[in-house]
Amino acid sequence: MNFEEELTKKVQQTEELLRRFLPREEGFQKTVLQAMNYSVLGGGKRLRPLLMREVFYHCGGENEAILEPFMAALEMIHTYSLVHDDLPAMDNDDYRRGRKTTHVIYGEDMAILAGDGLLNYAFETAMKAFDGASETEYPRVISALRVLAGKAGVYGMIGGQVCDVESENSQEAISAEKLLFIHEHKTAALIEAAMMIGGILAGAGEKTVRDLEKAAYNIGIAFQIQDDVLDVTGSEEVLGKPIGSDERNGKQTYVSIYGLQRSVEDVERLSREAIELMKLTEDSFVYELIIWLIHREK
Amino acid sequence: MNFEEELTKKVQQTEELLRRFLPREEGFQKTVLQAMNYSVLGGGKRLRPLLMREVFYHCGGENEAILEPFMAALEMIHTYSLVHDDLPAMDNDDYRRGRKTTHVIYGEDMAILAGDGLLNYAFETAMKAFDGASETEYPRVISALRVLAGKAGVYGMIGGQVCDVESENSQEAISAEKLLFIHEHKTAALIEAAMMIGGILAGAGEKTVRDLEKAAYNIGIAFQIQDDVLDVTGSEEVLGKPIGSDERNGKQTYVSIYGLQRSVEDVERLSREAIELMKLTEDSFVYELIIWLIHREK
Repeated sequence: MNFEEELTKKVQQTEELLRRFLPREEGFQKTVLQAMNYSVLGGGKRLRPLLMREVFYHCGGENEAILEPFMAALEMIHTYSLVHDDLPAMDNDDYRRGRKTTHVIYGEDMAILAGDGLLNYAFETAMKAFDGASETEYPRVISALRVLAGKAGVYGMIGGQVCDVESENSQEAISAEKLLFIHEHKTAALIEAAMMIGGILAGAGEKTVRDLEKAAYNIGIAFQIQDDVLDVTGSEEVLGKPIGSDERNGKQTYVSIYGLQRSVEDVERLSREAIELMKLTEDSFVYELIIWLIHREK
Repeated sequence: MNFEEELTKKVQQTEELLRRFLPREEGFQKTVLQAMNYSVLGGGKRLRPLLMREVFYHCGGENEAILEPFMAALEMIHTYSLVHDDLPAMDNDDYRRGRKTTHVIYGEDMAILAGDGLLNYAFETAMKAFDGASETEYPRVISALRVLAGKAGVYGMIGGQVCDVESENSQEAISAEKLLFIHEHKTAALIEAAMMIGGILAGAGEKTVRDLEKAAYNIGIAFQIQDDVLDVTGSEEVLGKPIGSDERNGKQTYVSIYGLQRSVEDVERLSREAIELMKLTEDSFVYELIIWLIHREK
């Protein structure tokens, strides 16, 4: 099986796993459960749970019963952030991945509640890991829970979102420092959560978990820079959206601050460092996954 | 010290405790931290953390280091629900307890993010209980976390909120069954969380925790019925708001469905049962607190 085939298979498996953890659409609160499921099952690369599982096995993890609830929980958190992001009071997007956004289908009130519901349900779901954990695995589950909450919150993803919203509302040009803060928090934080939790649940030591955090940081930032690079160098046909839109919108990006050459070099350096930190060999799936993620053309 | 004085003192202590657990207003995400703190420090009876602490001591709890994070966490969850409730897309309220609501001060986008931030931070805060827990207390903290998440989520508070929103948008009269569902979930669920967690952290057995859940259910429902009763029989001067507003708004309430006499009797019965379940003596503070809560005149 080549990489693309293996990836397709693994994405499908993750999709099935998600379905198992989603709530049944019944009861007086049925509408919110439908809105939650509609939001989660809207496609996407399932990158975060995928990375979590790959790191888990890479670190010698065996007990899937503690891994799977966290895979589902992380994707629920990623999804709720998109649902709230798309709201009229935020980015006001009517479409995502070619489908109508949650508030367009279910109304703004229900989209707010579906986002709240997903965030809360993510923690309920992650805590199901205790059911499949042996007593000696309890500390791992507790540690994973704390990483999940920390990376998702105001010192993680939400913090980045806040800074992004404020920068977009502001007339001032964004500083390099602030732009990095946004990428670190809005994008990298949940990738850090994915890879750290994969390691923690597998029983990796502190040093390894710190290295995983650094590697994930690199992957998250490189991913984001590559986004900015593609907006300048990409093919409209491959991207499926007009190129140069950031520049036309006067949006400050990594490329507009540091220039194209340095941006391309940084993507290269960050991904090389990530691979070294993780001690990956070129024949592993997770090596190919990282290369694919960072060096994608769309 | 009489009951009112003791209550005032305990509310003040809870207020100080909350301040200790709130985030410092600094960093690029400062605005959301300010909005979160503004929302939490908007006054209120602090009923849920207060009940949690009283039940904890009533059940023989000693280690405050595992109790206090949960007290703060539960109040954060209660607060986030109010912040999102007040949004223009929901109840559209500009004032709460005489102060401008969070979205009026910080904007709708920041209020959505502050609500998300508080819900997430509630779990981060509750997990701090692990820091003060002995190994043998870990299972209590885990059990308390699961109750917190369950009672706050789509099968708890959010579920009630969803049903309430839909009923208000609907032209049909609400059924007795649905009205009870709303009260059970929107109001009683967090009171159940408060009292169950107090018991669980104190090391109470399963039977006691189940009785606490039932007692809390009774208190929550009685509290809500009393609200409806006061709207009919209360004094405008004491309530500080016009009476009969539910009837004028065509709102179905417990009183409009079951009549005033049965409503008053049910409040009496529910509170008596709660006190019996908890085996409370009349000289205890928690006894007086429950009587005060249910039989209040405003």
